[in-house]
Amino acid sequence: MVNLSKLMENEVFMAFASYTTIVLSKMMFMSIATAFYRLTRKVFANPEDCAGFGKGENAKKYLRTDDRVERVRRAHLNDLENIVPFLGIGLLYSLSGPDLSTAILHFRLFVGARIYHTIAYLTPLPQPNRALAFFIGYGVTLSMAYRLLKSKLYL
Amino acid sequence: MVNLSKLMENEVFMAFASYTTIVLSKMMFMSIATAFYRLTRKVFANPEDCAGFGKGENAKKYLRTDDRVERVRRAHLNDLENIVPFLGIGLLYSLSGPDLSTAILHFRLFVGARIYHTIAYLTPLPQPNRALAFFIGYGVTLSMAYRLLKSKLYL
Amino acid sequence: MVNLSKLMENEVFMAFASYTTIVLSKMMFMSIATAFYRLTRKVFANPEDCAGFGKGENAKKYLRTDDRVERVRRAHLNDLENIVPFLGIGLLYSLSGPDLSTAILHFRLFVGARIYHTIAYLTPLPQPNRALAFFIGYGVTLSMAYRLLKSKLYL
Repeated sequence: MVNLSKLMENEVFMAFASYTTIVLSKMMFMSIATAFYRLTRKVFANPEDCAGFGKGENAKKYLRTDDRVERVRRAHLNDLENIVPFLGIGLLYSLSGPDLSTAILHFRLFVGARIYHTIAYLTPLPQPNRALAFFIGYGVTLSMAYRLLKSKLYL
Repeated sequence: MVNLSKLMENEVFMAFASYTTIVLSKMMFMSIATAFYRLTRKVFANPEDCAGFGKGENAKKYLRTDDRVERVRRAHLNDLENIVPFLGIGLLYSLSGPDLSTAILHFRLFVGARIYHTIAYLTPLPQPNRALAFFIGYGVTLSMAYRLLKSKLYL
Repeated sequence: MVNLSKLMENEVFMAFASYTTIVLSKMMFMSIATAFYRLTRKVFANPEDCAGFGKGENAKKYLRTDDRVERVRRAHLNDLENIVPFLGIGLLYSLSGPDLSTAILHFRLFVGARIYHTIAYLTPLPQPNRALAFFIGYGVTLSMAYRLLKSKLYL
């Protein structure tokens, strides 16, 4: 039987596991940020969420949108759109036997870029801060996809 | 050569595979629910989707939004935002050699919480039903992330 | 120690890696398509994004929505909603030791259907082109989920 705990002795895979866990935890933080702004600004999407703030018509006034809440939601969706490809391509790339230092460089750049993207989106920092962070993360994922397809294409 | 079918003899991994398949199938059901409400309520986002209901201006009146459709879409997006971290962190956690009964407890709680979350969102049940379901799933994923980083951190 | 590079000698897994990398790269292209339409049509969601097009009130007029941009965003979200289940279920299915030609048929159908879905959404082609593409991809994922649960259920 394959000793699975041995899979975790592979350094590239362990590094991938660590960086992925960090970047996914960061993404999960966006849910808390959304909830925080919804509660402090009393901005809700569902009638049952603001039932505690009043009855009938009085509560309905909290069913509205808010710039800050929408900003956090866009940042969250952008995370999803970029972290899902990293998750899939990064996992397969890690299993394809890349050089350890190259792999870690990819993971560090991606995680750093996504954390900076969130800071740039939520502050907000002037462009091109956010665009730059986006394209670094994007480029890292494409670079891993390229190496994977170059060495292991099987259609 | 690694006998991959042996990977599936690892009980934690098999349990992860089963629960993940169930929770992803549940998430896929949300697409059907959206399509159902769009068709029965004649609420569409694309002109080509309602071309069969009339011509020209007559069809355009179906390009609208609807509370129930938006509710299903929010539930679907919330699924994505929470199941993606579970997928990534849960896979790595399963490979890190956790205790079988602890792992199964995590998976069961998560899948149960997400199914209850959908019921609470679509019925809708009064709060804090949905919030509670959300935080149980969220806590399970964080707990797996914590155990993973504590035992296998490699940066 | 498990020789991970051997995992990539498994043909089903290599095929999964190749098709997944292609379909995820296709999904990443949607970000570029959104950015392209936002820039050429001057349609932005964030004030800092259109700061270069004018000052104060002059720039604010670009904070608007646009049919074409919203269409690309819907196509992108639909990709996410369908590729995430394929990623999770497909990975586990690949590891469950399926027949090579059956597995490749599943992967090819899925990737082809999702590429056709994007073409049908962005052109746009009349229905039922997009609906058909959606249901082929959906059926492929369900078929893999069914085989996985039938052979490896462990709850």
